Amino acid sequence: MSTSSATAGRAGATGAAMAYDALMAHQRQTSALGQVAGRLGWDQETMMPRGAADQRAEEMAAMEAVLHARRTDPRIGDWLAAIEAAALDPVWQAQLRHIRRSFDRARRVPADLAEELARVTSRAQGQWAAARAAEDVQSFVPVLERIVALKRAEGAALAAGGDPYEALLDDYEPDAKVSEIVAMFTAMRAPLVDLRAAALAQPAPQGLQGTFDERAQMELTHLLARAFGYDFNTGRLDKAVHPFSSGSGADVRITTRTSAVDPFNCFYSTVHEVGHACYEQGIDPAYALTPLGQGVSMGVHESQSRIYENQIGRSRAFTGWLFGQMRDAFGDFGIADEDAFYRTVNRLQNGFIRTEADEVQYNLHVMLRFDLERALIAGDLAVRDLEAAWNDRFAADFGFAVDKPSNGCLQDVHWSVGLFGYFPTYSLGNVYAGCLYQAMRAALPGLDGALAQGDTSGATGWLHETVQRHGGLYRPREVIAQAAGMVPTEAPLLAYLHEKFGAIYKL
Amino acid sequence: MSTSSATAGRAGATGAAMAYDALMAHQRQTSALGQVAGRLGWDQETMMPRGAADQRAEEMAAMEAVLHARRTDPRIGDWLAAIEAAALDPVWQAQLRHIRRSFDRARRVPADLAEELARVTSRAQGQWAAARAAEDVQSFVPVLERIVALKRAEGAALAAGGDPYEALLDDYEPDAKVSEIVAMFTAMRAPLVDLRAAALAQPAPQGLQGTFDERAQMELTHLLARAFGYDFNTGRLDKAVHPFSSGSGADVRITTRTSAVDPFNCFYSTVHEVGHACYEQGIDPAYALTPLGQGVSMGVHESQSRIYENQIGRSRAFTGWLFGQMRDAFGDFGIADEDAFYRTVNRLQNGFIRTEADEVQYNLHVMLRFDLERALIAGDLAVRDLEAAWNDRFAADFGFAVDKPSNGCLQDVHWSVGLFGYFPTYSLGNVYAGCLYQAMRAALPGLDGALAQGDTSGATGWLHETVQRHGGLYRPREVIAQAAGMVPTEAPLLAYLHEKFGAIYKL
Repeated sequence: MSTSSATAGRAGATGAAMAYDALMAHQRQTSALGQVAGRLGWDQETMMPRGAADQRAEEMAAMEAVLHARRTDPRIGDWLAAIEAAALDPVWQAQLRHIRRSFDRARRVPADLAEELARVTSRAQGQWAAARAAEDVQSFVPVLERIVALKRAEGAALAAGGDPYEALLDDYEPDAKVSEIVAMFTAMRAPLVDLRAAALAQPAPQGLQGTFDERAQMELTHLLARAFGYDFNTGRLDKAVHPFSSGSGADVRITTRTSAVDPFNCFYSTVHEVGHACYEQGIDPAYALTPLGQGVSMGVHESQSRIYENQIGRSRAFTGWLFGQMRDAFGDFGIADEDAFYRTVNRLQNGFIRTEADEVQYNLHVMLRFDLERALIAGDLAVRDLEAAWNDRFAADFGFAVDKPSNGCLQDVHWSVGLFGYFPTYSLGNVYAGCLYQAMRAALPGLDGALAQGDTSGATGWLHETVQRHGGLYRPREVIAQAAGMVPTEAPLLAYLHEKFGAIYKL
Repeated sequence: MSTSSATAGRAGATGAAMAYDALMAHQRQTSALGQVAGRLGWDQETMMPRGAADQRAEEMAAMEAVLHARRTDPRIGDWLAAIEAAALDPVWQAQLRHIRRSFDRARRVPADLAEELARVTSRAQGQWAAARAAEDVQSFVPVLERIVALKRAEGAALAAGGDPYEALLDDYEPDAKVSEIVAMFTAMRAPLVDLRAAALAQPAPQGLQGTFDERAQMELTHLLARAFGYDFNTGRLDKAVHPFSSGSGADVRITTRTSAVDPFNCFYSTVHEVGHACYEQGIDPAYALTPLGQGVSMGVHESQSRIYENQIGRSRAFTGWLFGQMRDAFGDFGIADEDAFYRTVNRLQNGFIRTEADEVQYNLHVMLRFDLERALIAGDLAVRDLEAAWNDRFAADFGFAVDKPSNGCLQDVHWSVGLFGYFPTYSLGNVYAGCLYQAMRAALPGLDGALAQGDTSGATGWLHETVQRHGGLYRPREVIAQAAGMVPTEAPLLAYLHEKFGAIYKL
């Protein structure tokens, strides 16, 4: 296996090899504990009794204290010093790069801050859910104020004089620059706004009518997960309030949800999470419980989940197969044929909710959050003014007013669990997915024929080979560039969207 | 709250108070991490994907490494030295007693042994289940040999020259002596053998016939759990291969199982685990995440689970109520009336399985395991000879032959997860339950009337007040003696069994 001293030995330095083995043993245990913390998070969202929330916050804080202590263990510095000069093997180099980065970053964050963040955000998840259910922003303001204060402190500590928001972003997308994200959004905004306006000016495709048995939805969504290659031997699929994927290696779990009137929510949430999960399940097992044994960034992660969900899952070819499956599961549901079904799946609608947005409008939702969260972290926007700022911006961007907080600033869980700097990685993932899809179509001439039979193995196999198996071996932009054969830009995504929605809406 | 420096301050020693606060902060985090490890165990038995077993073993080993390092942290010795002389408050004294004991014991076990035990036993659970399903003792012999070797090493390390088995027993039943257990079993054996022979010589009460819808079983078992006071706000009830209870404080989960032909297995497994869970849920919240915040020993734990299950749950009064519930759930199932139902619930039968044994024969099963596991740990019995030794002993004790390993030496999970010294606590719990029940009947003259209505609140309230709320405040025998108003002996249990089964079997 690539991470043992056999590799280190190639450097010809026995001291370095011993240090490498000691470092990797330490790292393997840290990774295992990280998996445990992740499992607790899954449990909290799926299984935990409601009354356990406070105790769970203490448990999460205790785990974070352990993890933080391990990540900042001074021996890591000694081991790294003994190895770094000797590093030759690319796998070794990649491991060290991740460990050095984690070590340097973790040491900048005081232990009590890390622990308090874990405690506060564990508890805040339930507080957010309660506020959202009650449409009560005010009760959540003090909670979010505390979180923003802690994240600002963390960002300042991580940035060491630089931009605190960029330092937080780096947690989810290593090496990403705020200026690049701004430039990307600037390039995307006008074309997306224009495409949206043009499509919404056309007659709307038919929507879904009636109700769809939720047990049958769960059966079909299991079938979909298998169709996209999700391995139930090392995973499981449960219902939860929010669809998510959790874990790495041999234990990667996903959740979905059902709605009687909106089966697409269930199906495409599942396919999205399967994209995340297949990335984790597909990483070279030799990297298990090492820094390379996880998806390399959230942007790359989203490239997988979004290409599974959209470019593949919402394609004309695949929706043709799905139409047949839905007819089998639900009988005639009022859509005449595959072409009509394809338009229904992909129709643009005015809507409040990011996760339900179509491919054209999705990135506009992300831009809104990106600007607001940067203002919160910069201190330019107070939490008590967030709702008004959200509602103003939403009306300006989407042309209609937010009707209630659960459709506005309380719709996403992210900020309540401390995820600031996470949102832009969704759009980065879309951009990466655009690049990958262009290359995949060129590489797989028979793609549509297979997808029309519900056979995704060509597409997912190509993604496994070019992206997923590498885990953390390459840098985020690097792995996409290698797979796509181009420096990633938003151009392929925009071209794909114009072609797809231009055809659907006869623009 | 009793565990803060406000308490410590009463000692009038500021240094001691500061040391106490530091120690308890450390301890609280250790307890939280112990809860996390327990949750992983629950997950492994209920939710974990099968393919995750090896990774989970690494996760468990990593958690054990963390816990062991925390339990042996040299600062604990310094803190204890600064406090112990100053200790005055009984709560404080009890906390220190537990911490001193844990510290002294943990330091005797090498870290790599503790970690390896966690890894091996995590993996062995699945290996045991596979061997049991395949009726294949041979495949499990090397696994159990490894576990016995590790446990012998652990026992020797803990015993520091004393009896290794007693040192292992002490993990589950602090202060218990092998000689006392032997004396207890010697006193119980002849009366139980005689009672068993006399009952089996009489005409057998009617058994259950037909099948019982398993979904309806789960509904009724939820009702039973509530009837015994289990709090679903801080717990949950799932199906698993083995019924168990897991966790302390605000997150105490139980499992049960169903069999179409044997609904009593489901109902009484649930009531048994509810007894364990109510003990944990009932502990004074001021002790949460401290050494006092858990049941004080497995013997006391079993006293609660067994008194819930047997003295209360299998009483004539309560079974009268249960009969009505079962008639409502399943219709006429061929038992004429409450009296006949009571005899059916309590009928003695030849059987292989400890967990399905009646109150008379149960302790005979335990004695068999107690003798065999002492021989394994002493090195007087080799693992490869275990099956033959089990089968010989079973035939001698029960008068018929074991037909397959799942009915013999592979029936219990305990040894595969390293639980040596655990079995005798079951019988100790029965003995304690006998003492408690005698006192409870004296204290609650209206008990049977309430139980006949399905109202257990008097009984469970008495147990909460006299035993459960104290958690680890008193020593095991001490809390039973205080509650029962007597030095615990087997006499009340034997008298109860003779009276109950003498009446049922007209002896």
